[in-house]
Amino acid sequence: MTATSAFVTSLLTSFGIFCGLVFAFSILSKWKVNHNIYYSARITAGEGPTAAARTRNPFAWLREAIFTSDEELIRIAGLDSAIYLNFFVCILEIFGYSALFCIPVLVPIAARSRNNEAVFALDPNQTYEGFDNLAMGNVEEGTAKLWAFLVGTYWVSFVTYFVLVKHYKKMIRLRGKEQAREKAAPQQFSCLIRDIPPPPKGMTRREQVNAFFRKIHPDTYMNCLIVCKLNKLLRIWKKHQAAKRNLEHAEAVYEESKTTGKPDGTRPMHRLYFLGLCGPKVDSINFYEEQVREMASMVAVEQQRTLKEEQLPAAFVFFSSRRAAAEASQAVHAPYAMQWRVFPAPEPREVVWNNLHKPVYERMIRSGLVYFAVFMTVVFYMIPIALISSFTTLDNLVKILPFLEVVVNFGPINTVLQAFLPQIALIIFLSLLPSLLMAFSRMEGIPSQSHVVRAASGKYFYFVIFNVFLGVTLFGTVFSSLAGFQTLLNSKNFSVSSVVTLFGSKLPPVAAYFITFVALQFFVGYGLELSRVVPLSVYHLKRKFLCKTEKELEEAWEPGPFEYQTLVPNDILILMISMAYAVIAPMILLFAIVYFAIGYVVLRNQALKVYVPEFESGGRMWPHIHTRIVVALFIGQITMMGYMGIKKFPYAVLVIILPLFTIFFASMCKMNYYPSFNVMSLAIASEDVKESPPMREIIAAYTPECLVLEDQDVYESEHFEDARESSVSTRPMVISRSDSASHETTADLYAL
Amino acid sequence: MTATSAFVTSLLTSFGIFCGLVFAFSILSKWKVNHNIYYSARITAGEGPTAAARTRNPFAWLREAIFTSDEELIRIAGLDSAIYLNFFVCILEIFGYSALFCIPVLVPIAARSRNNEAVFALDPNQTYEGFDNLAMGNVEEGTAKLWAFLVGTYWVSFVTYFVLVKHYKKMIRLRGKEQAREKAAPQQFSCLIRDIPPPPKGMTRREQVNAFFRKIHPDTYMNCLIVCKLNKLLRIWKKHQAAKRNLEHAEAVYEESKTTGKPDGTRPMHRLYFLGLCGPKVDSINFYEEQVREMASMVAVEQQRTLKEEQLPAAFVFFSSRRAAAEASQAVHAPYAMQWRVFPAPEPREVVWNNLHKPVYERMIRSGLVYFAVFMTVVFYMIPIALISSFTTLDNLVKILPFLEVVVNFGPINTVLQAFLPQIALIIFLSLLPSLLMAFSRMEGIPSQSHVVRAASGKYFYFVIFNVFLGVTLFGTVFSSLAGFQTLLNSKNFSVSSVVTLFGSKLPPVAAYFITFVALQFFVGYGLELSRVVPLSVYHLKRKFLCKTEKELEEAWEPGPFEYQTLVPNDILILMISMAYAVIAPMILLFAIVYFAIGYVVLRNQALKVYVPEFESGGRMWPHIHTRIVVALFIGQITMMGYMGIKKFPYAVLVIILPLFTIFFASMCKMNYYPSFNVMSLAIASEDVKESPPMREIIAAYTPECLVLEDQDVYESEHFEDARESSVSTRPMVISRSDSASHETTADLYAL
Repeated sequence: MTATSAFVTSLLTSFGIFCGLVFAFSILSKWKVNHNIYYSARITAGEGPTAAARTRNPFAWLREAIFTSDEELIRIAGLDSAIYLNFFVCILEIFGYSALFCIPVLVPIAARSRNNEAVFALDPNQTYEGFDNLAMGNVEEGTAKLWAFLVGTYWVSFVTYFVLVKHYKKMIRLRGKEQAREKAAPQQFSCLIRDIPPPPKGMTRREQVNAFFRKIHPDTYMNCLIVCKLNKLLRIWKKHQAAKRNLEHAEAVYEESKTTGKPDGTRPMHRLYFLGLCGPKVDSINFYEEQVREMASMVAVEQQRTLKEEQLPAAFVFFSSRRAAAEASQAVHAPYAMQWRVFPAPEPREVVWNNLHKPVYERMIRSGLVYFAVFMTVVFYMIPIALISSFTTLDNLVKILPFLEVVVNFGPINTVLQAFLPQIALIIFLSLLPSLLMAFSRMEGIPSQSHVVRAASGKYFYFVIFNVFLGVTLFGTVFSSLAGFQTLLNSKNFSVSSVVTLFGSKLPPVAAYFITFVALQFFVGYGLELSRVVPLSVYHLKRKFLCKTEKELEEAWEPGPFEYQTLVPNDILILMISMAYAVIAPMILLFAIVYFAIGYVVLRNQALKVYVPEFESGGRMWPHIHTRIVVALFIGQITMMGYMGIKKFPYAVLVIILPLFTIFFASMCKMNYYPSFNVMSLAIASEDVKESPPMREIIAAYTPECLVLEDQDVYESEHFEDARESSVSTRPMVISRSDSASHETTADLYAL
Repeated sequence: MTATSAFVTSLLTSFGIFCGLVFAFSILSKWKVNHNIYYSARITAGEGPTAAARTRNPFAWLREAIFTSDEELIRIAGLDSAIYLNFFVCILEIFGYSALFCIPVLVPIAARSRNNEAVFALDPNQTYEGFDNLAMGNVEEGTAKLWAFLVGTYWVSFVTYFVLVKHYKKMIRLRGKEQAREKAAPQQFSCLIRDIPPPPKGMTRREQVNAFFRKIHPDTYMNCLIVCKLNKLLRIWKKHQAAKRNLEHAEAVYEESKTTGKPDGTRPMHRLYFLGLCGPKVDSINFYEEQVREMASMVAVEQQRTLKEEQLPAAFVFFSSRRAAAEASQAVHAPYAMQWRVFPAPEPREVVWNNLHKPVYERMIRSGLVYFAVFMTVVFYMIPIALISSFTTLDNLVKILPFLEVVVNFGPINTVLQAFLPQIALIIFLSLLPSLLMAFSRMEGIPSQSHVVRAASGKYFYFVIFNVFLGVTLFGTVFSSLAGFQTLLNSKNFSVSSVVTLFGSKLPPVAAYFITFVALQFFVGYGLELSRVVPLSVYHLKRKFLCKTEKELEEAWEPGPFEYQTLVPNDILILMISMAYAVIAPMILLFAIVYFAIGYVVLRNQALKVYVPEFESGGRMWPHIHTRIVVALFIGQITMMGYMGIKKFPYAVLVIILPLFTIFFASMCKMNYYPSFNVMSLAIASEDVKESPPMREIIAAYTPECLVLEDQDVYESEHFEDARESSVSTRPMVISRSDSASHETTADLYAL
């Protein structure tokens, strides 16, 4: 019974840590000095901390997190966050409704059965624990009791279908409302063009694009912006920015030194080479002033050169109405569909400039190579994880490393180690992965940051499925014994049915392991997330010792956006585990509900008060999540099929209808819902617009920061006019020219 | 060596039959009385027989078939036929270039090897034949000679990629030219709308569709035509048509009787019930006149009722320009993508009216059920075919049916039976299938006839792959011995690698069987096709004994269109067999080249002179064929991998690159080429139109025949005007109103 006590210890310890962290949060978040950390989103928006910061009620934040409306959430945190949080609601509903049947019906049936006892009596090597008695494993083979579990499988499946449809409709409503806003966004008037063929002789790229689109969209095409190769410019521009920052820092240090005793202060000095550690000493302010001047002129020269010489076969094109842009973005333009590929434009802030021009062949080859690399990563990460999972029981560890025996046999340490060791190792391994996968995804040539995030999330999901879920389940048992090793070696005898059987038979024993994993993940993870102790400490240290300027201070508490690429796959892992065990070991539903409920509250608080999204993808994460929920359901159903077979239930074959229906459901969703998230439907695009950005603002938004000229307004030049004049339409122009440009751009220089 | 002599007998017999049939053709086609059969397409077009009918040269038709240009072919036989015939050119090029390497290099290598002799010496039960010595099976295991076959595999693959890309470009050019014709077709201005949601209260369907599209396409939307449920009307209408035909027939009979002795003639009489065999006798002319009158009024009443009461949630909508229709057909219109689904309109003649209104859920369920039914068909057809293929050797047949021994042992019968028996059985089985698959495909809810044909062709292809190719290959050997049976029963030990190995090892022995299959198919099949002896006999019989009116005579020789649903899968079966054996037994390439060359000439002749296409799908068969060529290549590469492994060639692993590259190639084609065949690209749609049909003609074209009113022109009614007036655009209308309507329609009644 050590595993049960280890489980309880793990649960209690994590819960203790969680309570401590929540307590810390409710104290710390009230201190004014910490508001930058706990209310960063509101401070960024210029709104200051909420009422919760001023009351003595330690749970005021909870009320705010729960009762703020979705509309308010979208206003503050954007559609992406709102959709991510609605995903929690969706999962809570699925598990809530599932539990309504599984807990009151299935758990008592299992508890009153005696299979574990019988097996235990026959084979003293088998162990079972208190928790296992509440699971399907305790039900005798082939009895009529299994009908209840069959009904349970159907119940869980249909609850899932029902809730998914309901939430998809809600998500489409939210997205549609956001898209049809009367204040239109720049991306709604734009399309991204990739794979432009080489221009005919004697024609510039700009002329080529203009000619092509003017012919096809004579009434609605307005203008275009050719993408340039920015690498070299960006390198210089970054140096320029760094020099400016250094200058500001040096000036701030000088100012600070003045306020004390000496009214003149001491001018800061630094050494030239190797992080300011060696080389001749120079006056920092003079040095950086010189550098800023020098770099500024270099940037200006390079900007001109880039615009003229570094034009690439990609462009943004702009239309006079949302409808025209939405319609153009969905149509095949060229006879060879791989030329002039048109896409809905990503939001300006999330454009990945370096990927836009990559030709489609290159993108496909890159994708192939990246998927090969991901495959290798998944396989090679599997080896350490398989080893870890064989340490799940400390006894195995001691077998391999006998010198640990003394430590391990000391009671409390034994319990704690047994509870945490494997999970912590697993978590450390997993935490190294996301940045690798983000880099992989960026290499694929994806044009927008949100898509990169989704691609990374998808890769992480494969990883999680194969390593954590399958790896722990199958290999955990395979590596724990020599016989298991042999099974692996004899894998030539593998067949689909034997995998399903193995899958079903190996799942229940690791249920307890997964529940500890879930418990650790949610209590400690969400405690850290809410209390933000790490960012808080970093912020205070930086504030004390490093930050001199206002800007530097701001950067020290800048919260950044949600990291969906790790959040989403982890949530889906928990979802998948719970889905697979929902009927086999229904108690897991309670843990899952607590996990997602705490997650919902904590992350809603963070979305409302802490994180600041960098860009808006229009909720395109939802189809990605949705597919994976359906896959989780599918795997759960397959698992049930296998497990029913092991339990020698003659009607197990009835389960086979469910995976088939899931496939039907998935293709129905793909047809009905996913297109609405890929593109803007024309019905929505045709809604009236009251306030649309003037064309110069749209172009300015799509001009990369490093191409913005500082002291020039050459927008008014004649080159830019050529495109405008020719787009004369007999209808009143929807977009009028405005004189209040947000910032000066060199967009017209593209016309050269 | 019986198999070799059987093979030669088969080849010579079929060649003899073929020569006889070609001879018959060159005689018969010159007789004037047969011109309706051999030049039906030209007579339908009002052009009369070609010069070949008048010369004494028996091969004049050959010159005409080969040297007519593609442009001329498209003009006469349409794009679909031209693309089908270009498929033959494509395959000829692939096999021609492949043979350039395989025949002069691989065959001598195989011929100079001694593996078969060695195997034969060791195991007297193994037999090998003269033909087998020219194949890879004769090469010793693990020798360096296998490098040549590896190179051969690469050669064949890259030749295929190259030729496919070249021909895809050609097909796109042909299609683009046809689409961009200055004389625009009605379907280019139309979109098909399906899954229209229920109309809001107090709105007719027509108002609903008008409101929706006018909002989204204010400048270009012109009009709509709501689809009605036609079942009941069609039943009455068909009776009406039949009565009219009967009346005409009776009048013709009466006229005929006049010309002879009696100037008054005898009025034809018939009995009322059971095919005119019992019941009271009536005067046919009076009876049918009365019936025609009666049915005409019933049709008129039912037409009005159908238009008012039987409106369905599907419609055709019409736009003012090709570009607008092309653009609209590609865009998601409604927030829920499964409502208001917009498709490019099929050509008017190929619309499957009864399928248009089927809701998308129903379509998906129907597809699922149909695919299940097809699966069952494939499986249950497999059993007889597996039995047949075990009869491939007569010895097996005698083993099972010993009483045949006397017959079979008679020399000549033995040889002929050995050569033809299994193939004839196979062909009979296969000929029953196409109409079943067409019915299945129509049940899926597909909106256009050409798509039904493609769907049936796809199903036939699955069938052909699983039964003929895999069935004969695997099960042919499995069923031929008890050990094979046991292998089948122990199929739990199946794994992917064992299937590949089995596949590779079982292929070469059945090569000869397949070559006879090919030989029979092409010589006898194409001989029959060219000589048209069956339609010719039927026509002359009908002409003599049945046909009285001009119309009936015309129907007797009406040639119909190409039956792509059987032609295409059979060609692809031959292609697939040849692709799989191209390197293993290179001699098959010669047979394949002869097959496709004869097919090309014969079918080109038929396309130019005989068959009349019923509709034009714009060459959409090509992506369908293309995918299957790529699949054939893929299967060939996998086969080579298996066979190389069997030959214990250490570098067999190098072949693995090829299937991977094929997957890459397939996805490249899917992105680059297939979209151009699904939709009309905007660049092509924006080409200038000189002659576009007036809107009333477009609407008339889309009005089902049974809804055409005979004595009324209510087109001018005010109801129709409402849609037109509201679509006032400031641009000059591309479609002007014409007063020369081709036939009167009741399209306006849709407005009620």
